[in-house]
Amino acid sequence: MNDDYDFEMSWKVRDYECDLQGIVNNAIYMHYLEFTRNEFLNQTGTNLGDLHAMGIDIVLARITMSLKTPLRPGDEVLSKMKISKEKIKYVFNQDLYRKSDNKIVCRAIVELVSLINGKLGNSKIVDKLLLTQIKDKNDSKFS
Amino acid sequence: MNDDYDFEMSWKVRDYECDLQGIVNNAIYMHYLEFTRNEFLNQTGTNLGDLHAMGIDIVLARITMSLKTPLRPGDEVLSKMKISKEKIKYVFNQDLYRKSDNKIVCRAIVELVSLINGKLGNSKIVDKLLLTQIKDKNDSKFS
Amino acid sequence: MNDDYDFEMSWKVRDYECDLQGIVNNAIYMHYLEFTRNEFLNQTGTNLGDLHAMGIDIVLARITMSLKTPLRPGDEVLSKMKISKEKIKYVFNQDLYRKSDNKIVCRAIVELVSLINGKLGNSKIVDKLLLTQIKDKNDSKFS
Amino acid sequence: MNDDYDFEMSWKVRDYECDLQGIVNNAIYMHYLEFTRNEFLNQTGTNLGDLHAMGIDIVLARITMSLKTPLRPGDEVLSKMKISKEKIKYVFNQDLYRKSDNKIVCRAIVELVSLINGKLGNSKIVDKLLLTQIKDKNDSKFS
Repeated sequence: MNDDYDFEMSWKVRDYECDLQGIVNNAIYMHYLEFTRNEFLNQTGTNLGDLHAMGIDIVLARITMSLKTPLRPGDEVLSKMKISKEKIKYVFNQDLYRKSDNKIVCRAIVELVSLINGKLGNSKIVDKLLLTQIKDKNDSKFS
Repeated sequence: MNDDYDFEMSWKVRDYECDLQGIVNNAIYMHYLEFTRNEFLNQTGTNLGDLHAMGIDIVLARITMSLKTPLRPGDEVLSKMKISKEKIKYVFNQDLYRKSDNKIVCRAIVELVSLINGKLGNSKIVDKLLLTQIKDKNDSKFS
Repeated sequence: MNDDYDFEMSWKVRDYECDLQGIVNNAIYMHYLEFTRNEFLNQTGTNLGDLHAMGIDIVLARITMSLKTPLRPGDEVLSKMKISKEKIKYVFNQDLYRKSDNKIVCRAIVELVSLINGKLGNSKIVDKLLLTQIKDKNDSKFS
Repeated sequence: MNDDYDFEMSWKVRDYECDLQGIVNNAIYMHYLEFTRNEFLNQTGTNLGDLHAMGIDIVLARITMSLKTPLRPGDEVLSKMKISKEKIKYVFNQDLYRKSDNKIVCRAIVELVSLINGKLGNSKIVDKLLLTQIKDKNDSKFS
């Protein structure tokens, strides 16, 4: 994995994700980006459902997304992600590539915040889940 | 309708649009925004399927979206939209409100482009479909 | 409304519900049927989210669905529903029509059951919510 | 793979597929079943988009589906399928299992038909794509 990213994964486009223009529908990119973030979270042994049961929700505050190349049935997607924290916001730089030719499909900057019992807050639990993984990775770079 | 917008419509949240956090899922906002743009387009008597059959696709190039208030089952959504053109891009300023208290739910700036037989281009047909409606509206303001 | 049905409603197909075949995707019919049932439930002033918070989930046990005519962008859907109870199951006979020519689109028999704190059961609350409405309607027929 | 099935594959539940009841939404099962059929089709080097461009659409005529166990975030799905032809219908017996304990999640009988330029018909191309794979498999059993 390129050092510029903290996490990557890949999967194949599902036909039902394509709309009447024959390309992956816009809304599906949001699913793809969310899916990648959740898989990263799942590595810690937890998931959004568990957190929700504890009164913690990680929610989208803002997204900027540029679509460069449409995805079609049969395409493989390579999803790469870099994570940082700015005050109470978790910032995910997320890029999707078409695996066959490494062409950029989508560039997104996604900002998420924690709601604790429905109120905006700074969750130490979420910090630990999201940021320890990166720290560990960065530490191991120099070891 | 407020003069600042060119088009507005409203609908009710459907329960199946809510995810395990009990709120409307992020990706659904993309559907809501697309739905509003398509209803605007449909007023001209055409739709994305007809255009696609003619070799014309209007596709998303870039979106910036801020989510302010989550939507829940039972909420009514008020969707308002302003349209402009910048070179070959159609720029839609789209705002979603919770109808019960007029609270802002989502602010988005959506940039779309035309593909003509798969190639980026400037479609006079799309210009006519999207921009004539606004012109007519603006003309009638002063008549 | 035809006396054979207990509830009906209508809406317009949304372009994003159509897949690369240019017709409403199969899975969307499940959404349409669920949407109709939930709107019927909502008439009682409650919704699936409220019930879930009370530990009650109404879940799908079985469905038989025949698709007769595909729906396309711009089509209006007329959804009609008849409800009965068989032991612990709620049976919904649900038919979707294309409004323009009253052609049958989809016939479904949907069986739902109540889960109380995750266990299959017979919920008097759900009985009241779902069945009182029909009873009232049937009573008023003869009054 | 068990000899009773012609094809199997597995994947992980995505969090966004779960609804406000915290379980995989009903409509997603339709996606799962369609996804499995399409992956089977893709093994032949084609897909629904290519067929659609040739004027051939394989569409759902009828489905019977029983849901036995709900799927939750993190669950792995094992999807198994058996294919046969009855007159002009392709009949898919499709079963979904929860991989962790092999518990049955969903049993479905799915009937599909071919539309050739929008008209119900018997496509030799679809026959070849769908049935040759099974024949080959069955032949090799006895070789």
